[in-house]
Amino acid sequence: MASIPSTPLLANELDIVIPTIRNLDFLEMWRPFFQPYHLIIVQDGDPTKTIRVPEGFDYELHNRNHVESLLGKRASCISFKDSACRCYGFLVSKKKYIYTIDDDCFVAKNPTGEDINALEQHIKNLLTPSTPHFFNTLYDPYRDGADFVRGYPFSLREGVPTAVSHGLWLNIPDYDAPTQLVKPHERNTRYVDAIMTVPKGTLFPMCGMNLAFDRELIGPAMYFGLMGHGQPIGRYDDMWAGWCVKVICDHLNLGVKTGLPYIWHSKASNPFVNLKKEYKGIFWQEEIIPFFQSVVLPKECTTVQKCYLALAEKVKEKLGSVDPYFTKLAEGMTTWIEAWDAHNPSSEATGSLANGLAKVNLGN
Amino acid sequence: MASIPSTPLLANELDIVIPTIRNLDFLEMWRPFFQPYHLIIVQDGDPTKTIRVPEGFDYELHNRNHVESLLGKRASCISFKDSACRCYGFLVSKKKYIYTIDDDCFVAKNPTGEDINALEQHIKNLLTPSTPHFFNTLYDPYRDGADFVRGYPFSLREGVPTAVSHGLWLNIPDYDAPTQLVKPHERNTRYVDAIMTVPKGTLFPMCGMNLAFDRELIGPAMYFGLMGHGQPIGRYDDMWAGWCVKVICDHLNLGVKTGLPYIWHSKASNPFVNLKKEYKGIFWQEEIIPFFQSVVLPKECTTVQKCYLALAEKVKEKLGSVDPYFTKLAEGMTTWIEAWDAHNPSSEATGSLANGLAKVNLGN
Repeated sequence: MASIPSTPLLANELDIVIPTIRNLDFLEMWRPFFQPYHLIIVQDGDPTKTIRVPEGFDYELHNRNHVESLLGKRASCISFKDSACRCYGFLVSKKKYIYTIDDDCFVAKNPTGEDINALEQHIKNLLTPSTPHFFNTLYDPYRDGADFVRGYPFSLREGVPTAVSHGLWLNIPDYDAPTQLVKPHERNTRYVDAIMTVPKGTLFPMCGMNLAFDRELIGPAMYFGLMGHGQPIGRYDDMWAGWCVKVICDHLNLGVKTGLPYIWHSKASNPFVNLKKEYKGIFWQEEIIPFFQSVVLPKECTTVQKCYLALAEKVKEKLGSVDPYFTKLAEGMTTWIEAWDAHNPSSEATGSLANGLAKVNLGN
Repeated sequence: MASIPSTPLLANELDIVIPTIRNLDFLEMWRPFFQPYHLIIVQDGDPTKTIRVPEGFDYELHNRNHVESLLGKRASCISFKDSACRCYGFLVSKKKYIYTIDDDCFVAKNPTGEDINALEQHIKNLLTPSTPHFFNTLYDPYRDGADFVRGYPFSLREGVPTAVSHGLWLNIPDYDAPTQLVKPHERNTRYVDAIMTVPKGTLFPMCGMNLAFDRELIGPAMYFGLMGHGQPIGRYDDMWAGWCVKVICDHLNLGVKTGLPYIWHSKASNPFVNLKKEYKGIFWQEEIIPFFQSVVLPKECTTVQKCYLALAEKVKEKLGSVDPYFTKLAEGMTTWIEAWDAHNPSSEATGSLANGLAKVNLGN
């Protein structure tokens, strides 16, 4: 397929959202790539602490006090002392696209030793369609030097709009605490030169470390849940968002890509601390996954907001019995949509509902 | 995950099936890798022509006369003058595993310049499980240096038995005639260092050029249809097999992997000839794909044979109206199973029916 000739910068259409508890020295390494963009920094701990941002970046910084003053009572839906607070940055952004990255992620190198412009690759991913209805064995058919292979139905080659671009990590892989404990020395050194669409009906573990999305298409579903301070669970914020997002993308005929670009993940978090945060999730996900695998959204849900509210209802109904936490989470989901709509009055995203295979007129 | 420490050769458990119309000089390049194995050569044209096989290989050669003398009336289900006849080789094999390769496929090199032992990688793929129920963003979790990422449900990490390993092609990509015509110079130069499971519920275009499978698990579904001489269509043999195989694997909880290993595909076939063979398929697949996407096999189908016969019934019922060819094809499918069972009397493969998510006891 003809790929886009050069990657637009989208500097006026993309915000970079960074949740943090520390000085943002990591931005120095990203300067050549990030400086054209506006940064939204969400401070996820003690609001009295000062976060230093390297000179020359255009940014706004929000701490807990800002969250509470902007959202009032609805601030309860934003996690405190957890990177899950990053979704507040998505809510206050006014741009079409979001890139979010963790502050322990650095510029990775490709196999020929060049610095990878992760943001440029995410933009390419978001600006080319996805192909969720049929698997292409040569991966992303819209890349240079690739195409749809023999046997790929022509009516499906137009693809669907891409809502999410999920990037990967070299060095420290995104493992759970048990795997970290068992394989403390494992590093991801394999550079897989591929981008692919996660097929329709298939769930995936969405990591928030290196993630871009089209806020107009899917923003209201990018809620990172209730984690951290006062909550029984952590490290499932991005997973929760990913499961909700995927189910809604499948319903609205939007695409999710994963693969390139890589960032360099510098430091493994403490596996003992992680185990404490995760262990309820390890049990709960055995109930959560079958729930998301079988949930069906009503046809009337033609916007992300409607889908998300319907999903919140079903979470309450089906997962409430697993633990009272899910009832609280379902309320958080509803509050989040109220907060989103209050601050994004004209944002009712209208996804296409042209589900399934577009039948061509065969002229018979 | 602990990967298998060294790759077993499986020389007594694997046959290599090669459909051909010419002398098999291409085997010289494969000698270091193929010589330990038994070759089943299926001559796909004029049976009076002599096919030369390089010295030192252990092989049997079947031409049309052999097919007719072995199968009698049932020989009608085996295509003539088309590489679709390769499935006859699957039927006469007595081994557990099959590797099939086209005679214009050579040894490829990996990015560090070493010859790729394609067969060894296929064996690795077949001997490690597949993960069709949930997507792993770091690709095959059973490879060295990889694992399941955070958020992957633990109950699904055991995977399911792998029935099919679909390898790829460097140099000439497997494009259809229209794409060949539009992009005559395109070459596949991208080495993607990945193996992945095609998720449950997702169809893929299975190419027969570089393909391995577990004959005991899925053999009776590896029927390459009615193509070539006397048929209205060609170049859909492997595609048809792949759609049938995938639907049956999904039903029986078996896995299909795609990705590594690469072979070097040396020569593009003539796009004008291909267009003539393909053009009905290009129309028909717009009906075929929705059929396979929606077909549901009855629960009573607990073996590949039962699944395949049920599928033949549905092909007749649902696709017969598209063209009389599909009624004939459905009959061919039934005849194929009769022939398979006659020559493989104890082969009733029993796939596991443990569909869906294995629920763990959460001890609540």
